[in-house]
Amino acid sequence: MNNERILLVSRPKGTPAMSDFRYEEAAVPELKGDQVLVKTIYLSVDPYMRGRMNDTKSYVPPFELNEVISGGIVGQVVQSLSSDLAEGDFVIGNLPWQKYNVVNDISVRKLDSNIAPLSANLGVLGMTGLTAYFGLLDIGKPQEGETVVVSGAAGAVGTIVGQIAKIKGARVVGIAGSEEKTAYLKNELGFDEVINYKTDNVFEALKAACPGGVDVYFDNVGGEISDAVLRLLNHGARIPVCGQIALYNLEKMDVGPRIQSQLLINSALMKGFIVSDYAAHFEEGAMELAKWLMEGKLSYKENIVEGFENTIDAFLGLFKGENTGKQLVKVAEPENV
Amino acid sequence: MNNERILLVSRPKGTPAMSDFRYEEAAVPELKGDQVLVKTIYLSVDPYMRGRMNDTKSYVPPFELNEVISGGIVGQVVQSLSSDLAEGDFVIGNLPWQKYNVVNDISVRKLDSNIAPLSANLGVLGMTGLTAYFGLLDIGKPQEGETVVVSGAAGAVGTIVGQIAKIKGARVVGIAGSEEKTAYLKNELGFDEVINYKTDNVFEALKAACPGGVDVYFDNVGGEISDAVLRLLNHGARIPVCGQIALYNLEKMDVGPRIQSQLLINSALMKGFIVSDYAAHFEEGAMELAKWLMEGKLSYKENIVEGFENTIDAFLGLFKGENTGKQLVKVAEPENV
Repeated sequence: MNNERILLVSRPKGTPAMSDFRYEEAAVPELKGDQVLVKTIYLSVDPYMRGRMNDTKSYVPPFELNEVISGGIVGQVVQSLSSDLAEGDFVIGNLPWQKYNVVNDISVRKLDSNIAPLSANLGVLGMTGLTAYFGLLDIGKPQEGETVVVSGAAGAVGTIVGQIAKIKGARVVGIAGSEEKTAYLKNELGFDEVINYKTDNVFEALKAACPGGVDVYFDNVGGEISDAVLRLLNHGARIPVCGQIALYNLEKMDVGPRIQSQLLINSALMKGFIVSDYAAHFEEGAMELAKWLMEGKLSYKENIVEGFENTIDAFLGLFKGENTGKQLVKVAEPENV
Repeated sequence: MNNERILLVSRPKGTPAMSDFRYEEAAVPELKGDQVLVKTIYLSVDPYMRGRMNDTKSYVPPFELNEVISGGIVGQVVQSLSSDLAEGDFVIGNLPWQKYNVVNDISVRKLDSNIAPLSANLGVLGMTGLTAYFGLLDIGKPQEGETVVVSGAAGAVGTIVGQIAKIKGARVVGIAGSEEKTAYLKNELGFDEVINYKTDNVFEALKAACPGGVDVYFDNVGGEISDAVLRLLNHGARIPVCGQIALYNLEKMDVGPRIQSQLLINSALMKGFIVSDYAAHFEEGAMELAKWLMEGKLSYKENIVEGFENTIDAFLGLFKGENTGKQLVKVAEPENV
C-alpha cells in the first residue's frame, strides 16, 4: 500500500516557504503486536506548529529535520490487530502527517462519533476548545459584568474564548482582521464589540469599546495589538498569553514598550500557558465543552481545505489571517465498514 | 510653634532636581477634638514615591503640586487630646513630610517600642518587609531547592526578599551594583551567589550562577537587567514585579524585547503588585516577620541620614544606588517623657 507524507526539510527563516517542506511517497509497514492501521480523515494545522519548526527551546520540542511533521489527526481504523479497536472505529491522536499511520492502539483514543461531527474533535471538543477553556477560566477568570478582550478573535481559539466569556456573563470585545470576521463575531457569536485591526486605530477603537477598561485580555497575537490593549488594563487585570502569532515568523528580535510598568501600576497578572499544563483536567474541560455544545451555547466554524496535497497551503494561510474558526484539512472520506 | 515642611512645586522631568521641591516654614495649628501633635522622629524615603510625582495614573494617586509630600513616618506624641494616645507614645502613619503633624488619633497606629528599634517599623517590620513578604510568598511561591533571583538585591525590599527565600529553602542569587553590596549580601545575609551588574555581564554571570535556570525572579528594577533574567526562566517560573527603579526617571518610552514569548514558552507567570493589595493580611505578615526577626533569621541594615533638611538628598540617593538596605531620615531624637 502506498503512503504519502510531509517532511520538514529546512528550518524556515521568517515566513515558511514551500521549499521548507517535502511531499513524498513511502511504503506502509506491516502491522505487528497490538497495532492498527489508521487512515487519516482530518488533519489539524495550528499556529503553534510554526514554533516547532525552529531549532530553539519552545513549549514543545522542535520538529526534527527530514522527519515527518506531526499534529492532531482524526482517522479511521482500516486494519486492526488490537483487541480494543476494530476496523471502522474512529480515533484521534497526535500523529505524523501522512495518509496512513501504523500505530500502537494505546497511542490513539477512540472517538464517539455520535456526540458531534468528527471534525469537531480537532476543534471545539479538542485541544483548541481546551486551550480556550483553561486559558480563559484558569488564568483569565472572567467575572460577570467584566470586560474581556480577545485578539485573534476569529481564530479557532478566539471564537471559543469569546463564547465562554459570554457564558460567564462578561462583556466581550473581539479584535480581528476583516469585515467578514468582525460581522461573524458580532452577528453570529454575540460578541458585544468588534474591532478590525486592519482598518481601525486599535487603541482608539478599544478605548471606545471598553469605556470601563479591560479586565481580561486573552492574547493570541502579541505585537502592537497587545501593546494597545495593555494601555487599558484595569486594576487586577488578568492576561492569559496563548499565542503570539504576530511573532512566529519574525526574523529579528521583537521589540516594543516594556510592559512591566503596566503590570505594576495595575497589579495585573500575565501568564503564558500551553494546554498540556492542564492535562490532568482535560476530562472535566471536555465534558463541560460538550455540554455547552449540546445545549447550543457554543457554536463553531470550520475552514476545511480538501486534499492532503493542500496541507502546507492551509498551514501557511494561518499566518495570512485567511481562516475564520478552525482550520482543517480533509484528507479522505470515512469508509463504510 | 514653628514647623518645617517639604512641598512638591513642579513635576520632575526625568531625574528630580532640588528645584522641584521647596522647604518652607509654617505655623503648627492648635489641636482640636481627638487630635494629637506628632513630632517626626524617622521619615522613610522610598522609590515608589517618584511615581507619585508624575501626573499620571499609577498605583497610588499623584502628589498634588504645591502641597506637602507625604510618606511613612515614625513619630512621638508630644501633645494629646486623645484618650487613646498619651504624650510620649510612639506612633506610625502615612503623614506629611513636616517636623510636626497635627492628626486625628485614628490616622496613626501606636507602636510597641520593645519589639524592635523604632526605625525597624519603617523597614523590616513595616511596608518594606510586608512588600517583600507578600510579593515573594504570594506571587513568587519559592519551593525548597528552587532558584530565586532578586534584582535591587541590596535595597530595602531586596535584602528581605533574599532572606525570606533562604528561610523557605531556596537558592538565592542577588543582583546589586557595588562590591560592597555584593559582599554584604553574600557574607552577611547568606545569598548563594551575587552579581555586580556594573562590572559583570549580567546574562553570562546569571547563566553561570543559575545552572538550573530561574524559578522565581523578584523584580525591583526592570530594564535591561530584567531582560537578561527573563532569558533564563524555567517552565512554570513566577515573577513578582515590585518596582521598576530603572524606569522611574526615564523621559522617553521604555522599549525592549517584548517578553510575552518568554512567558509563553515557559508557561511563566508575571504579576505586578503593591503592598496595599494585601492589606487584609498585614497582621499575619507582620507577625511572621517579627517572629523571624526575634529568632535571628532576618537581619536588616539601615542607611540613616541625619536632619530634615537632607530629606530630598536622601530620596534622590535611592536612584543613584547609594543605599544598602532601608533608607531613612532621622529628623529628631525621641523625647524622654
